[in-house]
Amino acid sequence: MGLGQEISEVLGSRLSYQGRKFRFVVEKLRLPKGTQAEFEYIKHPGGALCVPVTNDGKLILVRQYRFSVCDRLLEFPAGTVEPHEDPEATIRREIEEETGYRAHQWQKLGEFSLAPGYSSEMIYAFLAKDLEPLDTPPEQDVDEDIEVVTLSAEELKAAILAGEPVDSKSISSFFLAQDFL
Amino acid sequence: MGLGQEISEVLGSRLSYQGRKFRFVVEKLRLPKGTQAEFEYIKHPGGALCVPVTNDGKLILVRQYRFSVCDRLLEFPAGTVEPHEDPEATIRREIEEETGYRAHQWQKLGEFSLAPGYSSEMIYAFLAKDLEPLDTPPEQDVDEDIEVVTLSAEELKAAILAGEPVDSKSISSFFLAQDFL
Repeated sequence: MGLGQEISEVLGSRLSYQGRKFRFVVEKLRLPKGTQAEFEYIKHPGGALCVPVTNDGKLILVRQYRFSVCDRLLEFPAGTVEPHEDPEATIRREIEEETGYRAHQWQKLGEFSLAPGYSSEMIYAFLAKDLEPLDTPPEQDVDEDIEVVTLSAEELKAAILAGEPVDSKSISSFFLAQDFL
Repeated sequence: MGLGQEISEVLGSRLSYQGRKFRFVVEKLRLPKGTQAEFEYIKHPGGALCVPVTNDGKLILVRQYRFSVCDRLLEFPAGTVEPHEDPEATIRREIEEETGYRAHQWQKLGEFSLAPGYSSEMIYAFLAKDLEPLDTPPEQDVDEDIEVVTLSAEELKAAILAGEPVDSKSISSFFLAQDFL
């Protein structure tokens, strides 16, 4: 997609907080049309996600606790890209940690901005096929609380349209994958 | 959807920054499964979005500059819910500011978490029909840099799949609307 074509000039920085996975900053920017204003946003290294498809056409998702919304959401496996990491390497690791499956066939689906009002995060979405259940899956992160869920594409569409709690990157990636399912 | 069923207990707060549209906090939480850890996230009042459909079936979108990704994204009209505001009131105002159209027929499409890893924001998505172009559209916000774009549903799907820069809430809402287009 080649984003980043129109840089905003940073005129000053008032706050910069380094969190575990991203930096939160308050910066005064000059936008391309000339406006100067202060913006608060997250500088994020990016996220990688996959739509895992079993040999019989089922989708592997996770239902995980999310403190931010105080509930469990149905999501595709995903994780934060480490500095200087290739997004495909990120998601090859995360699918194993979150679902216990290894995928041997990978295909890029696309990429999109997650929350452009306040985050630079891009989501890199992949299709993951030829799945192999691992005998000894890697440990989950200590703050993860995850259950693996297997659904057909029709069941997932019905669940989303019925109001099952889901997140935006998962719906978007399902959309990008639909012609391959 | 009734999110908020499993509250995490706030054990302490280390930073709380009040931005223009949301608060950024660093809190120590006790998660439902017992883990205690520090989390950085945005406490957000929510976002409202609409998929505007003209009488001849075209979709009204905006292409707007986003400083966070230093580029222009194709998005559906949307805006931040003001405190104590009904999301439908938010988007009835925002569609006029961003596109110059008033919509007379409204239907709830659904809601979803935008970026659950670091934001409490829920997106409330609506279908907006029976559009009327306003003679004198309201002023845009000073930091907005927006162009109105009209596409058929087929053109939008093709643009997204071809890698046109887009954002997640717009793809997700297009998915929720697809059976009504």
